[in-house]
Amino acid sequence: MRKEKVLRDPVLNEIHVYDQVILDLIATPEFQRLRRVKQLGVTSEVFHGAEHSRFSHSLGVYEIARRIERHLAQFYPTQTNTDGLWNPEERLVLLCAALLHDLGHGAYSHTFEHIFNTDHEAYTQEIILSPTTQINAVLKQVASDFPEKVAQVIAKTYPNPQVVQLISSQIDADRMDYLLRDAYFTGATYGEFDLARIIQTIHPYAGGIAFADKGMNAIEDYVVSRYQMYVQVYFHPVSRAMEVLLQHLLERAKSVFENHAERGLSNGFMPKALMPLFEGDITLDEYLMIDDSVMLAAISEWRNSDDSVLADLSRRFLNRVPLKSIVIDEQTRSLLPQLRELVETAGFDTQYYTAENDSFDLPYDAYDPKARKPRTQIELRQQNGDLIELSQKSALVQALTGRVFGDARFFFPSEMLQEHPVEDMMAPVYADFQQYIENGQLIEPK
Amino acid sequence: MRKEKVLRDPVLNEIHVYDQVILDLIATPEFQRLRRVKQLGVTSEVFHGAEHSRFSHSLGVYEIARRIERHLAQFYPTQTNTDGLWNPEERLVLLCAALLHDLGHGAYSHTFEHIFNTDHEAYTQEIILSPTTQINAVLKQVASDFPEKVAQVIAKTYPNPQVVQLISSQIDADRMDYLLRDAYFTGATYGEFDLARIIQTIHPYAGGIAFADKGMNAIEDYVVSRYQMYVQVYFHPVSRAMEVLLQHLLERAKSVFENHAERGLSNGFMPKALMPLFEGDITLDEYLMIDDSVMLAAISEWRNSDDSVLADLSRRFLNRVPLKSIVIDEQTRSLLPQLRELVETAGFDTQYYTAENDSFDLPYDAYDPKARKPRTQIELRQQNGDLIELSQKSALVQALTGRVFGDARFFFPSEMLQEHPVEDMMAPVYADFQQYIENGQLIEPK
Amino acid sequence: MRKEKVLRDPVLNEIHVYDQVILDLIATPEFQRLRRVKQLGVTSEVFHGAEHSRFSHSLGVYEIARRIERHLAQFYPTQTNTDGLWNPEERLVLLCAALLHDLGHGAYSHTFEHIFNTDHEAYTQEIILSPTTQINAVLKQVASDFPEKVAQVIAKTYPNPQVVQLISSQIDADRMDYLLRDAYFTGATYGEFDLARIIQTIHPYAGGIAFADKGMNAIEDYVVSRYQMYVQVYFHPVSRAMEVLLQHLLERAKSVFENHAERGLSNGFMPKALMPLFEGDITLDEYLMIDDSVMLAAISEWRNSDDSVLADLSRRFLNRVPLKSIVIDEQTRSLLPQLRELVETAGFDTQYYTAENDSFDLPYDAYDPKARKPRTQIELRQQNGDLIELSQKSALVQALTGRVFGDARFFFPSEMLQEHPVEDMMAPVYADFQQYIENGQLIEPK
Amino acid sequence: MRKEKVLRDPVLNEIHVYDQVILDLIATPEFQRLRRVKQLGVTSEVFHGAEHSRFSHSLGVYEIARRIERHLAQFYPTQTNTDGLWNPEERLVLLCAALLHDLGHGAYSHTFEHIFNTDHEAYTQEIILSPTTQINAVLKQVASDFPEKVAQVIAKTYPNPQVVQLISSQIDADRMDYLLRDAYFTGATYGEFDLARIIQTIHPYAGGIAFADKGMNAIEDYVVSRYQMYVQVYFHPVSRAMEVLLQHLLERAKSVFENHAERGLSNGFMPKALMPLFEGDITLDEYLMIDDSVMLAAISEWRNSDDSVLADLSRRFLNRVPLKSIVIDEQTRSLLPQLRELVETAGFDTQYYTAENDSFDLPYDAYDPKARKPRTQIELRQQNGDLIELSQKSALVQALTGRVFGDARFFFPSEMLQEHPVEDMMAPVYADFQQYIENGQLIEPK
Repeated sequence: MRKEKVLRDPVLNEIHVYDQVILDLIATPEFQRLRRVKQLGVTSEVFHGAEHSRFSHSLGVYEIARRIERHLAQFYPTQTNTDGLWNPEERLVLLCAALLHDLGHGAYSHTFEHIFNTDHEAYTQEIILSPTTQINAVLKQVASDFPEKVAQVIAKTYPNPQVVQLISSQIDADRMDYLLRDAYFTGATYGEFDLARIIQTIHPYAGGIAFADKGMNAIEDYVVSRYQMYVQVYFHPVSRAMEVLLQHLLERAKSVFENHAERGLSNGFMPKALMPLFEGDITLDEYLMIDDSVMLAAISEWRNSDDSVLADLSRRFLNRVPLKSIVIDEQTRSLLPQLRELVETAGFDTQYYTAENDSFDLPYDAYDPKARKPRTQIELRQQNGDLIELSQKSALVQALTGRVFGDARFFFPSEMLQEHPVEDMMAPVYADFQQYIENGQLIEPK
Repeated sequence: MRKEKVLRDPVLNEIHVYDQVILDLIATPEFQRLRRVKQLGVTSEVFHGAEHSRFSHSLGVYEIARRIERHLAQFYPTQTNTDGLWNPEERLVLLCAALLHDLGHGAYSHTFEHIFNTDHEAYTQEIILSPTTQINAVLKQVASDFPEKVAQVIAKTYPNPQVVQLISSQIDADRMDYLLRDAYFTGATYGEFDLARIIQTIHPYAGGIAFADKGMNAIEDYVVSRYQMYVQVYFHPVSRAMEVLLQHLLERAKSVFENHAERGLSNGFMPKALMPLFEGDITLDEYLMIDDSVMLAAISEWRNSDDSVLADLSRRFLNRVPLKSIVIDEQTRSLLPQLRELVETAGFDTQYYTAENDSFDLPYDAYDPKARKPRTQIELRQQNGDLIELSQKSALVQALTGRVFGDARFFFPSEMLQEHPVEDMMAPVYADFQQYIENGQLIEPK
Repeated sequence: MRKEKVLRDPVLNEIHVYDQVILDLIATPEFQRLRRVKQLGVTSEVFHGAEHSRFSHSLGVYEIARRIERHLAQFYPTQTNTDGLWNPEERLVLLCAALLHDLGHGAYSHTFEHIFNTDHEAYTQEIILSPTTQINAVLKQVASDFPEKVAQVIAKTYPNPQVVQLISSQIDADRMDYLLRDAYFTGATYGEFDLARIIQTIHPYAGGIAFADKGMNAIEDYVVSRYQMYVQVYFHPVSRAMEVLLQHLLERAKSVFENHAERGLSNGFMPKALMPLFEGDITLDEYLMIDDSVMLAAISEWRNSDDSVLADLSRRFLNRVPLKSIVIDEQTRSLLPQLRELVETAGFDTQYYTAENDSFDLPYDAYDPKARKPRTQIELRQQNGDLIELSQKSALVQALTGRVFGDARFFFPSEMLQEHPVEDMMAPVYADFQQYIENGQLIEPK
Repeated sequence: MRKEKVLRDPVLNEIHVYDQVILDLIATPEFQRLRRVKQLGVTSEVFHGAEHSRFSHSLGVYEIARRIERHLAQFYPTQTNTDGLWNPEERLVLLCAALLHDLGHGAYSHTFEHIFNTDHEAYTQEIILSPTTQINAVLKQVASDFPEKVAQVIAKTYPNPQVVQLISSQIDADRMDYLLRDAYFTGATYGEFDLARIIQTIHPYAGGIAFADKGMNAIEDYVVSRYQMYVQVYFHPVSRAMEVLLQHLLERAKSVFENHAERGLSNGFMPKALMPLFEGDITLDEYLMIDDSVMLAAISEWRNSDDSVLADLSRRFLNRVPLKSIVIDEQTRSLLPQLRELVETAGFDTQYYTAENDSFDLPYDAYDPKARKPRTQIELRQQNGDLIELSQKSALVQALTGRVFGDARFFFPSEMLQEHPVEDMMAPVYADFQQYIENGQLIEPK
């Protein structure tokens, strides 16, 4: 009788583990660290339920990969070398890659990487390959070249395209979990789709993964869900405003830190754990000591910093006082210097209190054969076995093909929108500023 | 037209705010701090989805109170002083008390309070009443005595029993939200019940809150849900094991801190923010600077402590290596000294590596008139207007009345259960220890 | 590659068929007839969503049995004759018995059987065994003794107790489907429980089916759900009132029919399809021609009957004018002759316009070893492999053990409760009658 | 205190009635008759859960209208004659029209109307206006001209465009209920959308009903849901095949009936209730006697008809033996005569055993100003109060604008697709026929 460990999961109901190596990987400090890294970073400032961690997402990706593999092994086990069906010996490398694919993420990854020039995918591979980690030790127990194989899947250089596509493609275990999970925790119900249905229609072929014809509607629903999650959650203006705030406060902290260092002053305001990061020379062990709580505790302290800009940005971040924003386009972008001047006049350092941010997504670029390799397209398998690209069959997806969604925004302090600042000597500045805005968009003042 | 602000909530779908004072309270730093305090503390170590904060719970209690109040104001507005119906002028004090009832919670409250002798309810009232907080400033804009009124509801001394019972009774807005919310985020679906139905059957009377007869089945379901959440989630042995670990590591940190202080040594291992707490002399402002991330960042550092016990407990806590446990009862409890001795022999300090923990609940003690005041019972309102206590009508609840659920457990290091420790010189000790256990219970060894 | 046919089902999401014999059974006229027999009879007069058919329930029982069998075959395939594990060769007999277990149900079965002395279980076996049916022909294609085997499972005489218990026991595929399905279609959400969890904990043993210890909470939830469905749905007073109405109208039709026959009058009011039934001499083929629509079309015609009682009862039934009812007990039952007299005085034939109906359930009688065979108890399997009866482990179930739920009611025409019948010469009669009622119960008038 | 009657509904959870007139309307025989008319006709032959009645749909439309009205009355009550806001005096006419809008539907309406030249909308109005109905009597108790007003809403001639649009427009109470309800009962989860969210964003204006800007994503989701329900459920080929079967069998019954009548033969095979319909001279009372069960009971009898075509079609219909179908287009349509000839050769009367059926939907034609009046568009209300047509704002809807979905199909007996008809002398005919088909489409044989 097979041994089984069941973890209760609110999104996928239950996560089943049958392999000791998976249990051992979960138990490593490197994997447990993901409990302390939020999946969506600052998004919980807008969607207050979205406090979920990369730990739960990683388990989810594992579980979806496990369900897909069970389906493939049951219905499409390979018989010959050339039948293009599923090789059950790929099971463990698939499951391990699914579980570990996000291992290298730092706290508030996107901001973090931008400021400190790190790369979470490179870290993921390093954690898997470095002989100093427990992850590596556990993987090596499978086979001496097993860490290398798992790292190849992450790097998309693994020879079996089915394994790679299940972890990374237009419709893979990673995306399916994060869309469902983020929808569940944000409460954005538009993000739901029928996971079980999609899994049931997965059909392997020599070049990768296709989907049975009859699953088309479930995939259409997935595509629309993805669109809705991007437009409503990932591109939410307030979330981006908090992101900007975090980015600017880290930039400021870095600038203060470097300035102190140059002047030989004490850098006591910087917690020990973050020091190597700000010094720009960080080991893997040191990297793995950093998580959301270390970052937040630092920002917590910085509220009392001598540097008034750092202290103010830290307070705005922790007390959730986001920057405000308006939509800009190619034409109106030329008006931004005037807006920045008004923000400056109102007493704000525009380097830290304003920003431009473009968030666009071309969700169906995969269907454009000119731009992408054919194997990353979503392929439907017809009754006679032929493959056909999704948008050739789905009128709904065809309608969305090649269309860009999203917007560009200009961010500025909420003070600029004050309504009745009569006693305020900045009142005329604010009034000037507000003439540039209508229906949430930047306009030429009348 | 009424102004309205809608927050998306995954549990209650939407949270509606119509009052500027509620918006202003949410925007205060004291309330925003609740984003950084987990609702269930270490429970997320067992139920990985349960990362939700006291911030989202507090919004949920507000929303449930709002829906109840809307129901009361629509169907049962008071006409005379003596009709026992609902006075819509109580609306704002109800909503504010609902929103703010958990304001004083610290990081990992239960452990925290035990170690540092703090009381979150007292802090809640202090935050509301202290002229130094923004919460107090916002509440005073309603009326100068308004903070006092809200604090009275929290303290259960407010004159109107309906308001008090809606915030604190056997079936109040607080419990209804936390049961639903904890069920949602843990994935323990047994915790669900029909909130809308319960709200619709609420009926005020002079002595408090009753429920229409026809709502009985929904209340039965709520009672069973409460039972299930206690048995499955709140009393989960691994969760309690992590709680024990946290408690012991804080006790150890305190002991090390005091020892250093006595010996005039540096206490540099203690972060600035936690210093006043460990020194036992903390101001309200200092208390409000502490949250989960500050605590976690400290434990993060303590992994490198010179004190090996503190370092080890910190690593076990962050890497999730819980103590193991077995069920004990009054008879077998007498065997514990022998077990502790074996743990000691195996090289563990029993003060920090073992514990007893009793978790019992008498969910229906309210229905025992000898033990409780009649007004805290759940009352059903019959067709002719008479009230009848729930267990008199519900055979299901009657069956559960006066029964105690839960267990007592002994906790010890997982090493004691090692299966094949042949090369280990401690193997005989472990083997001895394991003779005391069968089916997860402490037994007299054969 | 296995062939697969998927049916979308709102309760179980998808029903999967992998066997041609199952597809062929579904396609028979005998099975298709179940589309025209409602699962809950007159219950849809109270819960308007509950229009679902025995066809969909039968598919559901099949699907649950299939999921259980997949679990058993995957985790507990028998290795030796005496290991008490699951024999995968039982698969097809299990699935066929699950699919066909309700085949013999007539229109509005419970009423029907009572009036016409039929027995749906006997009919189910006859349809399976009779060489005239297509069901029998399909089953015989598996093996010549296969129909006999399937009929034995229905009759509980099949030698393998695991197969029998999966179809018929305290917690079997039949009950699990009807509780979930009836909850879904009535909207009585209290009837939900965690099917997937229960299935995962099923564990075969030589004497039948047990459940792993860790599944206890899911089973508790199932037991409570069952209680709630009985109390709220199956025993609903208005549903029973409609049942009484139907029963009385069929009795009246039978009486009129027999009276006509005795007097040599035409029985043209009786549709051809129902004739053999009323004549008391019906063949299997004739039985299979009867469904809800045939019955309803007859009642439809009877609204125009010359017999005023039959016409009136038919109209009340189709226009949903249920009898009213009050709760009676052993003491107050002695007052019923006085009530009946008042109903008679008000102009109603008490034989057709009044009734007594007792609906009681002892949901946990399985746990009383004195009353039942041990193998029908719900058994939990502990860590060391020992079985323990559910109520020995679950405090919740123990509390409910041996308790009877339900009530006895007296039914009468709604006219008796008229509120302002002043101009009505029956007003004093109604007023007299109403003195016997308080809070929905029969009382001694004051 | 307001009186309240609550009906449990699986789709909308609860249906609340506060008005005696609504209760009285529900209690009329004309409304109760809708219990015996399925909402989706033969669709339950494909989606076996979809047995729900027009009764439950009608209650659902009422409930959605009630929720919308409560929203409008709470947030946008009219103050002046010209503010374009909601007049709460329209409440009752709105609710009654919502409840009664489907009153005239016959059994299997679409087929029925086609064969017997009836019009359910005309019947709805007649039932409301005719002094012989109880519906009319109840409505008249409100005011003598009230039936006329309700009928005007149904006829879209009522002066207040808000009332009309809430009952009949691109996004009205009727469509919202049937999409949700049909999704619930079929299990086609893609049909779900966020009703509460849409209701909350409804905003009245002088010309009708608009939606607040922030509700756009919920409306996008509704538009996509509608597309999915059409493509997956309403246009399902097997459902259309059963529809064709029903239509042909009724045509055959009519032909046999008329033939008998001409030849002076007995028409005893025709049930009394259907006689006036087939004779083409039916009164309102007679029309109201017909429901699904009357129709089904007749088809049940016709299985034994002397006319072999009628008997065979009846059996196919009741035993669910649908016609098969293939997709055709303008080019391949020219091949149909050849296919029909082969069907004829195989022994089938092509008039009754083949059919062409086109099912197309242009879900977003409302957004084409050339084709429709502006007031039927979906309008979004921007921050500054201006209205903007949905597709101008939503890139998703714009992508779908003006696109036609659906297909044209040719239907024929399933025998034509027999796989191994070797012993069958029709084998060569079947083989010829099958050369015309590839991937479910009609092709020019190679």
